Amino acid sequence: MGLFSKDIKTMDDLFVHQLQDSYYAENQIYKSLPKMIDQASEPELRQGLEQHRAQTANHIKRLEQVFKQHGAEAKAVDCPAIDGILEEADEVAGEVADKPVMDAAIIAAAQAVEHYEITRYGTLVAWAKQLGREDCAALLKQNLDEEYAADDKLSLLAKSGINSRAAA
Amino acid sequence: MGLFSKDIKTMDDLFVHQLQDSYYAENQIYKSLPKMIDQASEPELRQGLEQHRAQTANHIKRLEQVFKQHGAEAKAVDCPAIDGILEEADEVAGEVADKPVMDAAIIAAAQAVEHYEITRYGTLVAWAKQLGREDCAALLKQNLDEEYAADDKLSLLAKSGINSRAAA
Repeated sequence: MGLFSKDIKTMDDLFVHQLQDSYYAENQIYKSLPKMIDQASEPELRQGLEQHRAQTANHIKRLEQVFKQHGAEAKAVDCPAIDGILEEADEVAGEVADKPVMDAAIIAAAQAVEHYEITRYGTLVAWAKQLGREDCAALLKQNLDEEYAADDKLSLLAKSGINSRAAA
Repeated sequence: MGLFSKDIKTMDDLFVHQLQDSYYAENQIYKSLPKMIDQASEPELRQGLEQHRAQTANHIKRLEQVFKQHGAEAKAVDCPAIDGILEEADEVAGEVADKPVMDAAIIAAAQAVEHYEITRYGTLVAWAKQLGREDCAALLKQNLDEEYAADDKLSLLAKSGINSRAAA
């Protein structure tokens, strides 16, 4: 899709564009998680991020299924938003000298990623329904629910002790 | 703060860094809202975005108060995340040819912005409490609650008819 070429003419075009954006985002997240896992110290956090990576692989497959059901090609468009979120995570991690503080920073970064996915899947579910694609909406809703659950799990991890160890 | 200079040694450093990041983000959002308002057609959406701009000015003031209470200088650090989110909003808007579709795209972009702020304020409230700064947490919680309310309002606007007009 060419920049500023006014290629988005209908809600269907906008829906497919957003699918492509999320497809790019999930793939970038999948690629960036190993570095985050390496930087984390707390075993529970590392394990949580490992699980989220497996879940992310599943989200990518579900997105491919949505593309297929909707008769669109599974392709990615650049998504400066997720690039910026991941770049910031990397920059902050590069600044942190202390392990427990690093864990707190990683949780915050992972939650920023989750929230980006939550907002995009929320939008995609609404648009799919609007377009009468209940089949696509159901798949996208599964990704949305798993992102919410991952975000809640990170909040619990932070409250369960990582933040207090970091502030000790 | 120099890049990769390991300047974040404590939770307090991380908290102040995140405050500076959010201070930058709120200022960028304040600057970018007039363009979004110009691009929107639906009067209710334009009005909602206008109100959110006034609210954003208030969030900036509250952040300045938090800096003051915490004895830190109110300054901004670059935040590639919000830059990416706003750049993406701009790119997508540049692609859209149809007014109702543009309104749907603007709501989605504004919700991505809200979710970024929600995740950051959620983190800041948790960290402020951890650091024993209930006074700062209370102010940050006010910003958080208003971001949640703004996001809910955008969801309602989308459901109330903007999406169906866009899909018509």
